[in-house]
Amino acid sequence: MATTGGEATATNKQVILRDYVTGFPKESDLIFNDTTVDLRVPAGSKKIVVKNLFLSCDPYMRIRMGKPDPTAALAQAYNPGEPIYGFGVSEVIDSGHPDYEKGDLIWGIVGWEEYSVITPNPSHFKIQHTDVPLSYYTGLLGMAGMTAYAGFYEICSPKKGETVFVSAASGAVGQLVGQLAKIMGCYVVGSAGSNEKVDLLKNKFGFDEAFNYKEEQDLNAALKRCFREGIDIYFENVGGKMLDAVLLNMKLQGRIAVCGMISQYNLEEQEGVHNLATVIYKRVRMQGFVVSDYFDKYFKFLDFVIPYIREGKITYVEDVAQGLENGPSALIGLFHGKNVGKQLIAVARE
Amino acid sequence: MATTGGEATATNKQVILRDYVTGFPKESDLIFNDTTVDLRVPAGSKKIVVKNLFLSCDPYMRIRMGKPDPTAALAQAYNPGEPIYGFGVSEVIDSGHPDYEKGDLIWGIVGWEEYSVITPNPSHFKIQHTDVPLSYYTGLLGMAGMTAYAGFYEICSPKKGETVFVSAASGAVGQLVGQLAKIMGCYVVGSAGSNEKVDLLKNKFGFDEAFNYKEEQDLNAALKRCFREGIDIYFENVGGKMLDAVLLNMKLQGRIAVCGMISQYNLEEQEGVHNLATVIYKRVRMQGFVVSDYFDKYFKFLDFVIPYIREGKITYVEDVAQGLENGPSALIGLFHGKNVGKQLIAVARE
Repeated sequence: MATTGGEATATNKQVILRDYVTGFPKESDLIFNDTTVDLRVPAGSKKIVVKNLFLSCDPYMRIRMGKPDPTAALAQAYNPGEPIYGFGVSEVIDSGHPDYEKGDLIWGIVGWEEYSVITPNPSHFKIQHTDVPLSYYTGLLGMAGMTAYAGFYEICSPKKGETVFVSAASGAVGQLVGQLAKIMGCYVVGSAGSNEKVDLLKNKFGFDEAFNYKEEQDLNAALKRCFREGIDIYFENVGGKMLDAVLLNMKLQGRIAVCGMISQYNLEEQEGVHNLATVIYKRVRMQGFVVSDYFDKYFKFLDFVIPYIREGKITYVEDVAQGLENGPSALIGLFHGKNVGKQLIAVARE
Repeated sequence: MATTGGEATATNKQVILRDYVTGFPKESDLIFNDTTVDLRVPAGSKKIVVKNLFLSCDPYMRIRMGKPDPTAALAQAYNPGEPIYGFGVSEVIDSGHPDYEKGDLIWGIVGWEEYSVITPNPSHFKIQHTDVPLSYYTGLLGMAGMTAYAGFYEICSPKKGETVFVSAASGAVGQLVGQLAKIMGCYVVGSAGSNEKVDLLKNKFGFDEAFNYKEEQDLNAALKRCFREGIDIYFENVGGKMLDAVLLNMKLQGRIAVCGMISQYNLEEQEGVHNLATVIYKRVRMQGFVVSDYFDKYFKFLDFVIPYIREGKITYVEDVAQGLENGPSALIGLFHGKNVGKQLIAVARE
């Protein structure tokens, strides 16, 4: 089979986990390694070789950087000394797999490196629609978008007119949750960590209200100001103190979709949540979910969301770091809220 | 209409809340008051006068003894200076209500007093089956039993062969949950606060395993010992540290029915729960519920449970305090785990 430009090998820069991380990750926890990759699939192998175009920075990756935790079934730890991995958008360079051919664009799990040799699995998806930005497949049209879609429709049981609160609302998942809730006819409030992000929520994504949690003395009071009658649905991305304040403001029969708890991932000991007894009084359903359980609905999701994107009724803000060499700082910035919108890395142009 | 013995009035001992309680309630928080009650319903009134035979001591009553808490919609506070109230079994003495007549037995909310004058509402039920102990209508055939039934079947979504953990397992609700789970073909473990209670769980109620939480250094280890493969269903009655340990042991797609958190009701500040992020990794559904939402299923519950009682396949242990004058110590003993089985008060014989 052919290889790009006829070269049989290429140098392959990789991002390696130096050692298990405790506390906030630092740039020095991730180191670069230049290796060589064979751009041709060995005869008889069903693997594919891909060139990575975009890589996604996601909060769950912090969990994988820590020591293996048997209670976190989802989050198999990265191996120190090896490349980290995550969702990416890639172009097939060579293929031994009958379903893939050179030039195909895919999204799914790949290494943090310029080229990856992978065995395709059911969570690698071929990209069919290329009239939308290809980078969207790291977020809006990839794992984050699917997370928002599954979490909102499958877990939150939303109804028109209900009140919805989204934390980390300008992030990869939150910005879509808010827009889905508006499409459903809900009243939607978001929290974020800067005034710039609050402005995005209100003026770009159409949230009814938004607040900067860093400027609120009392999160309970902030929520009471935005939700006079309480919260029907909370889309939980942060955990900790925000969850505690939300629990005091849930309405009867409220639902909490527990998508993530980014405020907790870097803590050696998790913050305690004190107001759980309100789930009894208010008959609250609190449900954790993981997007991979819903990937069978991916094409249904695409059919739903792509027309809204084409019509401009769903929009998406990305924060794009240029080049793999800026990947570590982009990923670490996520845990300090430096990203505005979906954080990703542009590794290579097609 | 006739009155008992032809007397028009009777003395009526009442149990009064002295003042809002903080921390653990003391006997001195409840005081007695002797008043006089008119045993005849005034002409034209639809009220009924009842003689209280049994009164139920329930953990939720502690919440009502505290200052009014707007976040606890369920738990309207008792008024200091007035009788406390709760579930009881009573006999109708006089009735102005077309659906009730003298001699009827009912269960539902009444004052902690010898006689109550009440306006029947949909959560007052007429007692039809009297071949079972009348006191059962304070527990097994009343609110606690209905709580176990609704919580287990409606919230836990149990399946044959699943693993079930029940805390406060020898209490009014727990003992029935365990027996329902055994009937369903589940593996059932309970925790309780004394070796006598643990013995009851294993030898009277048929739990597969049980442990005394006060003798365990490490609740996580105790649960791992009893559940090698983890917990599918947790019926939560206690909250706090036990919930934290359970969260570390939930299986994928596990369910937690949040029925009560008795370990927290007397604390000025609720303990923090630290392991909530596991609801994400394990896709756990945690759902609070309140039995009054399910009272429409009460007669279905009776049809289900009474045959098991008659056949001796469901059993129930009661801890009966004699006389209203022993009511305060019985109620307060509940928060120190002094009761063995369902705590109630025998106020009067028919």
